[in-house]
Amino acid sequence: MEEKKYVTEWANKNLGLTLKITNMVHEEQTPFQHIEIADTLEYGRLLILDGVFQTSVKDEWTYHEMISHVPLMLHPHPERVLIIGGGDGGVAREVCRHHCVTHVDLCDIDGRVIELSKEYFPSISKVLRNPPEKLHVHVGDGIAFARKVKDFYDVIIIDCSDPIGPGEGLFTRDFYKSAFAALRKDGLLVQQTESPIVQQSTVHDVFEAMNDVFPIVRMYYSHVPIYPACLHSFMLASKVYDPLTAEPRDGAPEPMKYYNRHIQKSCFVLPNFIKELLYKGQKSF
Amino acid sequence: MEEKKYVTEWANKNLGLTLKITNMVHEEQTPFQHIEIADTLEYGRLLILDGVFQTSVKDEWTYHEMISHVPLMLHPHPERVLIIGGGDGGVAREVCRHHCVTHVDLCDIDGRVIELSKEYFPSISKVLRNPPEKLHVHVGDGIAFARKVKDFYDVIIIDCSDPIGPGEGLFTRDFYKSAFAALRKDGLLVQQTESPIVQQSTVHDVFEAMNDVFPIVRMYYSHVPIYPACLHSFMLASKVYDPLTAEPRDGAPEPMKYYNRHIQKSCFVLPNFIKELLYKGQKSF
Repeated sequence: MEEKKYVTEWANKNLGLTLKITNMVHEEQTPFQHIEIADTLEYGRLLILDGVFQTSVKDEWTYHEMISHVPLMLHPHPERVLIIGGGDGGVAREVCRHHCVTHVDLCDIDGRVIELSKEYFPSISKVLRNPPEKLHVHVGDGIAFARKVKDFYDVIIIDCSDPIGPGEGLFTRDFYKSAFAALRKDGLLVQQTESPIVQQSTVHDVFEAMNDVFPIVRMYYSHVPIYPACLHSFMLASKVYDPLTAEPRDGAPEPMKYYNRHIQKSCFVLPNFIKELLYKGQKSF
Repeated sequence: MEEKKYVTEWANKNLGLTLKITNMVHEEQTPFQHIEIADTLEYGRLLILDGVFQTSVKDEWTYHEMISHVPLMLHPHPERVLIIGGGDGGVAREVCRHHCVTHVDLCDIDGRVIELSKEYFPSISKVLRNPPEKLHVHVGDGIAFARKVKDFYDVIIIDCSDPIGPGEGLFTRDFYKSAFAALRKDGLLVQQTESPIVQQSTVHDVFEAMNDVFPIVRMYYSHVPIYPACLHSFMLASKVYDPLTAEPRDGAPEPMKYYNRHIQKSCFVLPNFIKELLYKGQKSF
């Protein structure tokens, strides 16, 4: 394997984040994407898909806690959860901590991500290595998987890569219609939607597309240090519960490194430039 | 001048942010620091001091609005404001928008930053180019400046560079004692205190030092895309008003690109890992 001292993610041709590495642990091309695993000095072991930093051992909870617990604490009685993507197991790990959740389907298109995560990211994938009875792992197309199900899930979490490559179809109105149908009558979904600074078009377009399908759509954010501009957005689309007014239920899993009851509300409080992007389509960056 | 295609800030030896540039506009060594000005494609014209990205035309409001308006809206009747550092004029520009403020001192140690900002950053420095009567610009040591004044200011804003180089003395208990004495009996100060992800020691140490001097110390944050890990902290030290409980006054200047009344409260809501850093000294990164 080629000796590398640094890995750089170019968010676009003008902006790059560089991490010094001690070791390139693994590299392979699957039918779906190019996978790299590197040991970085700043954030520990790092998963890279098609050149894009996905998750690292030291910062993964900034993402996995926030994409999982915000929807699961907003829904008053989540029982059935579908995770699309999420082959590293981090979202499944957090979802399975909720005792009220009795059935979890995880559907990732690339079985190699699942296998490599089990091998190289034990702290993130531990729920895949020793799956509880309620967790069902499927290798396949998440879009087709969701299309076959009607009126079944309380929460769908779309833990996908960027809207180019294998995740592309997950950013379309057609998919959101399938997901709407797969949700129970008070269901909700969350999707990671990139950076509201560096990928303003994605954030705006997903917000519009979801608004065509769901009555309530709200953006919230977390800080994910390995992502471009670090301010990372999640789009929550809901049939009934509005995170701006609904109180979260009691009984969040403990301990957490990022999420808490106050964050559940404050993560939806947006700076003016993001409100202008969502509601007026005005870009600032 | 050497032809450069990229500028990189190394937050430490393991983590770098790289911006593609079209042009290195200016470069000089002053008695205090090395100044570079570059035109970047992603964030527009960029000021770099001693290799550290300071402010850019496209993202400067994420910093200048938040370091200025949060303290000025918390104080119920701010009249006199001292800005230490801030030679680019961005903080002074925001402070002067408050009609209730009648006297502003700005004291930067490096007159070249002021002059170059006037020349190369007109949108940021416009209040320096056409100063209102209430603005008084001083070139000199901010620590000595603050030490000479007693019971005078309502708000002190410390818009300094990192705690190495000319800004070093601004991160000490002795300086906070001088600032406490320079403030009126219900005064407060704010200081930029680096990243709670990449510079955890600075954030923790300033919090402890300020707590030895002021009865109320709270951290808040903004997202500054050109800074390492982008999640940027500000430490607010106050004699009377607690931002967690006090309501902001009415009449914020309009328009704003980042700040709004809801942000005034939500920016103090911290993820668990930051609370553990501040209150227990536990580092996560």
